Amino acid sequence: MNNEINIGLFGFGTVGQGVYRVIDQAKNAHAEIRRICVRNLDKKREVEVDSRIITDNADEIFNDPEINLIVEVVDDAEASYRIVTTALKKGIPVVSGSKAMVAVHLPELIELQEKYHTALLYDASSCGSIPVIRNLEEYYDNDLLLEVKGILNGSSNYILSRVFDHGEAYSAALKKAQDLGFAESDPTFDISGKDSLYKLIIITVHALGVYVSPEDIFTYGISTIHDADIQYAREKGVKIKLVAQVVKVDESRFTMFVMPEFVSPSRYIYSVDNEYNGVVIRGECYDRQFMFGKGAGGLPTASSILSDIMARRHGYRYEYKKMGYIETPEYTTDVILKVYIHYETTDIPGLMEFERILEMYTSETDNYIIADISLRDLMRYRDLLSAPDIFLANLPVFFLDKDD
Amino acid sequence: MNNEINIGLFGFGTVGQGVYRVIDQAKNAHAEIRRICVRNLDKKREVEVDSRIITDNADEIFNDPEINLIVEVVDDAEASYRIVTTALKKGIPVVSGSKAMVAVHLPELIELQEKYHTALLYDASSCGSIPVIRNLEEYYDNDLLLEVKGILNGSSNYILSRVFDHGEAYSAALKKAQDLGFAESDPTFDISGKDSLYKLIIITVHALGVYVSPEDIFTYGISTIHDADIQYAREKGVKIKLVAQVVKVDESRFTMFVMPEFVSPSRYIYSVDNEYNGVVIRGECYDRQFMFGKGAGGLPTASSILSDIMARRHGYRYEYKKMGYIETPEYTTDVILKVYIHYETTDIPGLMEFERILEMYTSETDNYIIADISLRDLMRYRDLLSAPDIFLANLPVFFLDKDD
Repeated sequence: MNNEINIGLFGFGTVGQGVYRVIDQAKNAHAEIRRICVRNLDKKREVEVDSRIITDNADEIFNDPEINLIVEVVDDAEASYRIVTTALKKGIPVVSGSKAMVAVHLPELIELQEKYHTALLYDASSCGSIPVIRNLEEYYDNDLLLEVKGILNGSSNYILSRVFDHGEAYSAALKKAQDLGFAESDPTFDISGKDSLYKLIIITVHALGVYVSPEDIFTYGISTIHDADIQYAREKGVKIKLVAQVVKVDESRFTMFVMPEFVSPSRYIYSVDNEYNGVVIRGECYDRQFMFGKGAGGLPTASSILSDIMARRHGYRYEYKKMGYIETPEYTTDVILKVYIHYETTDIPGLMEFERILEMYTSETDNYIIADISLRDLMRYRDLLSAPDIFLANLPVFFLDKDD
Repeated sequence: MNNEINIGLFGFGTVGQGVYRVIDQAKNAHAEIRRICVRNLDKKREVEVDSRIITDNADEIFNDPEINLIVEVVDDAEASYRIVTTALKKGIPVVSGSKAMVAVHLPELIELQEKYHTALLYDASSCGSIPVIRNLEEYYDNDLLLEVKGILNGSSNYILSRVFDHGEAYSAALKKAQDLGFAESDPTFDISGKDSLYKLIIITVHALGVYVSPEDIFTYGISTIHDADIQYAREKGVKIKLVAQVVKVDESRFTMFVMPEFVSPSRYIYSVDNEYNGVVIRGECYDRQFMFGKGAGGLPTASSILSDIMARRHGYRYEYKKMGYIETPEYTTDVILKVYIHYETTDIPGLMEFERILEMYTSETDNYIIADISLRDLMRYRDLLSAPDIFLANLPVFFLDKDD
């Protein structure tokens, strides 16, 4: 593609306007937004733009021969899927910020890129401004990689920070996160762990070259956290964080899951607070790398999208090299985790089987159990564990990763 | 270049043997070490290699048509310069770990890469395993970048950690660093700040597209630190760290220097201890990114060299894009710093002019002055400030970077 980038932008919300701003600031980007497609033409927006470039007709972008890059930051996964696939089939490269869409359709999107000799970049879809995907794809492009784990969702982390560092009630913290625009108006996506899950799926493709579908991955959020759990964590001198991780179990297998976790002060992610994201990359030889930055917000995400736009100036595309490795590791849920399960009315000890029960506590109001259980069994008990009186958290013990 | 990498390796010390190990482990690297050139054939080494591939004749590598990549990890800057320039002139791409050589000769090395259409990669030369250069070159490839600052030297940081976190005497800590192999047998390079300086020069080329020669950059090390300085820092609840930084002063100018700095607990680099490196990248929009990892040691460095080797499989080369920007910022020492200067016999107040004196302390044994002074003047006083009774440290006040 030529060196001048003429952009067709889909979506002009927080991120879209952020993209407009950063491109305006980046004097050397040689990039220009030629057209902006929005759903509602009349909607008021902070950023002033020439109304002539705004349209509600997608074809005005798809059929404009001058446009050589489509940037898609709509907040509707369905629409985002239509936009991206249409563009790729027309051979137009795309930069997307839609993690949900990318995570769900990645195998097809990879095929489309090959079939139509074009590119889809989506670094902004994971960890806002932190260049996780690009680094896993390019820099950790070798099989020394053992583990990628971190705090991938800014709003749930903000909520937990308010609770642990400021002693706020969960509900008050959630409200504040929404007021600050970190959490969606419907925050389920964030606090259910789904947002972290989607990012983890994308990360795993670039870390180990393997795609695993959302439904096959154990995901547990923070929405059922109780004061008793917070109290318990405080007494132990640890914080509860929502952690997503993909970990090599042995030479040929890896596991992955999203779960609240008790995090001790000695670990890097302990200090990742508020809306920040933090990712630990562990490998043979280089031990641990820690990347830390703003994971939420319009401008951080926009700056990451700008990096993808600039990368297109040089024709950059993900090669998905690791998918071509002689032997890619196999996904397994056949690993034993040590978990904490708080319950009130549900009879956890009676309803669940464990490998080994390590601690049990009961009182008039709260009960908890600490036990070893396989990830496979946790998957089996998913519905049971979703009861509002239950809260589950991981007590990290395996892979000697106590100090990450 | 083809996809199989046949390596000619120069240097088989700690890093060289580390490179041998990681390539051996990286099954999917498609890389093989065909020949190893060493200075002394008889030297005992930990790693067992077929003696037939070891030589002390460089031409056996340069003239081997099968070798399509030279990896150079000799610890002698002169030799490293000869090896790298010879290779580039023969059109053979090179991966180098020699920061001193790269930092001093970078302009010529960039010319040679263009003239002979080949590539020189040196990510390992800065911050061991942290992918700083690659990220600045590729990901922060836009002019939103405001500042790169960090702890770039593992051994001096290890020494300061022992002093501050373990109450050891400076001399004992230095000895320990040498015993652990973090510091060179001649540690001057590390504790004088030179090692950090060279890394900073390389970082600046990839961060802002400007090369500044070592002699034009104010560099002050930790070798003259006194118990009184350590005491002073402790009383203020801060640590002293050796910090290298390049900072945009305004739209069109930047400054850079290496200096001990009082670091408060609220800053990211406060928690970068022992042999670790930590780099903070600040930009418009994305605020601050923090990268943290092992900065010293054979294997971390080797894993970074492996990343450069893998990058060559895909023909990767630094484009030095930012040097081609319409307007690159201009280097200036015309900035005011707030500094702490400890002195015993040298009459600092009498011999130095300051913009403004903020504090003065005198006692029978120690004296210190806290004052505003321009970086230009600090350059003027370099010789004076190198007296053994003097210790200088930066008290960060400018660029609102108090929380980085």
